[in-house]
Amino acid sequence: MTALPSAVLISEEGPREGFQIEPGPISTAAKIELIDALSRTGLKSIQVASFVDPRRVPGMADAEEIVTGITMKPRVEYTSIWFNERGLQRALASQGLTITGKIRSYPSKAFLKRNLNRTPEEHLAHTHQEIARYKELGILVTEASVTAAFGCNFQGDISVKTVLEEVDWIQSLAREYELPIEMLSLADTMAWGTPASIRRLVGEVQDRHPGLPVSLHLHDTRGLGIANAYAGLTMGVTMFDTSIAGLGGCPFAAHKGAAGNVCTEDFAFMCEEMGIRTGLDLDALIEAARLAERVVGHPLPGCVMRGGTLSGLRAAL
Amino acid sequence: MTALPSAVLISEEGPREGFQIEPGPISTAAKIELIDALSRTGLKSIQVASFVDPRRVPGMADAEEIVTGITMKPRVEYTSIWFNERGLQRALASQGLTITGKIRSYPSKAFLKRNLNRTPEEHLAHTHQEIARYKELGILVTEASVTAAFGCNFQGDISVKTVLEEVDWIQSLAREYELPIEMLSLADTMAWGTPASIRRLVGEVQDRHPGLPVSLHLHDTRGLGIANAYAGLTMGVTMFDTSIAGLGGCPFAAHKGAAGNVCTEDFAFMCEEMGIRTGLDLDALIEAARLAERVVGHPLPGCVMRGGTLSGLRAAL
Repeated sequence: MTALPSAVLISEEGPREGFQIEPGPISTAAKIELIDALSRTGLKSIQVASFVDPRRVPGMADAEEIVTGITMKPRVEYTSIWFNERGLQRALASQGLTITGKIRSYPSKAFLKRNLNRTPEEHLAHTHQEIARYKELGILVTEASVTAAFGCNFQGDISVKTVLEEVDWIQSLAREYELPIEMLSLADTMAWGTPASIRRLVGEVQDRHPGLPVSLHLHDTRGLGIANAYAGLTMGVTMFDTSIAGLGGCPFAAHKGAAGNVCTEDFAFMCEEMGIRTGLDLDALIEAARLAERVVGHPLPGCVMRGGTLSGLRAAL
Repeated sequence: MTALPSAVLISEEGPREGFQIEPGPISTAAKIELIDALSRTGLKSIQVASFVDPRRVPGMADAEEIVTGITMKPRVEYTSIWFNERGLQRALASQGLTITGKIRSYPSKAFLKRNLNRTPEEHLAHTHQEIARYKELGILVTEASVTAAFGCNFQGDISVKTVLEEVDWIQSLAREYELPIEMLSLADTMAWGTPASIRRLVGEVQDRHPGLPVSLHLHDTRGLGIANAYAGLTMGVTMFDTSIAGLGGCPFAAHKGAAGNVCTEDFAFMCEEMGIRTGLDLDALIEAARLAERVVGHPLPGCVMRGGTLSGLRAAL
């Protein structure tokens, strides 16, 4: 057991993941209200929009209005995602967003086809074009991600060897194009990971690429999200994507495989109780989590917003 | 990091914990149906009833009828709890239950008062009387438990030192009365534990009493149950209380501090995926979890029953 880190950096993905999957409709004003509430919690990075085809993802059709409407706070990064030139153009046209490039790896061919409708060869070509485009626009490529790094509903288990080959590919691109990659996100997109497989893969990546900080993006579809996050902490991981109230899926609908990320306030609570600084205001997070429930109109999986923190109990004694 | 154990023993507490807390009413027939379903999952120990004052716990008023109605399977232990002579007599009169004695320690005076309305002195006297009574009846005292071992809503943090003193007291009783204690249950009754505090306390108890196997009883009120269970596994703990579907609290009511134990099927899923044998049939557990939701009439927190296991996905590929 490695000593736990002294601090972690939590990136909030709830708005983007939640709004795109909730049956809704959720008003733009409500989306903005939630993002503004998250801005008051101490979070330094909030993913607010997905610039994708509104026919495919109707819940994100108002991405531009969301970005225009939120009250951006200094020293908070508001991020977004896109998958093609059209999306990139929309992100660039939306003032105030932090725009950085990202290399995306898909060890599961089946998921690549399903999600982006590309073959591995097409994705390779696309990635080279995308990097060239970022260079042209002066956008720094600072991140890389491995999607479905622990397993895939459509392809099964993903071996550590396969992921390591993908990371080697990312690193070779970084060298070729002199990309300042400062974060490798290992994503358990479809919740195949366990604490044991998280520790194994993170350890192998760290051993092979000691200078490459790992981030974890852990979905909670099978209930192991918080245990997997803890396993990441024991490996010294200090960057996590999380989702307020566990937003990002409806666990009480027959929407299999779609639960959100590890719940922000539950994870922050665990960290703080273990002496790991998050820089977050737990009470403000809980307020935002309750707001998230009101915004989506149904209960969300977060626990601390119902169970309460311990600081209040300690103070009352 | 200690190597994970190769197998664990899971004791099901859902029926007892759930029926006593659900607003109900739940019919006796439905309770019996759920217990019978649990009997078909491979579970070797199922806690089915609480012989307590029906005025205080109306959901357990039908304890005798439950015990009479269930179809007991060979090699499955059906257990119950009681807190006084009247309860013990009722348990003894209910045929087929496994009756063993248990020493209960309450490091939180405030909780002891609240839960059993006893001072520490009264509880000490009661425990001696209780052990004498078990001796008289030929009932073996095989278990001991420490309630609220990680913290208490009414007394705050419970120090490791305090718990170790309680375990010393238990061990001194075991020596004095020659009790064959084979399990020490550390209960995080009010969900104050974290993976770090679980590891610390379990480690200290193991160091001080290497011959005393530890069991963990972990409530999920603040969302850390599964992470805490994993932390226990890393310390070599092989006995866990769990609750089907997470039964035992209503996370969507304003019932703070009352969430159930770690969810049986989620925990079993995590173990099996990490190569730890549980002896349980995951699909049968999921069926029982869905039945539990129908029985209580509202969603329960379990995830795998919605997210699905991986074996089905693997088989379909």
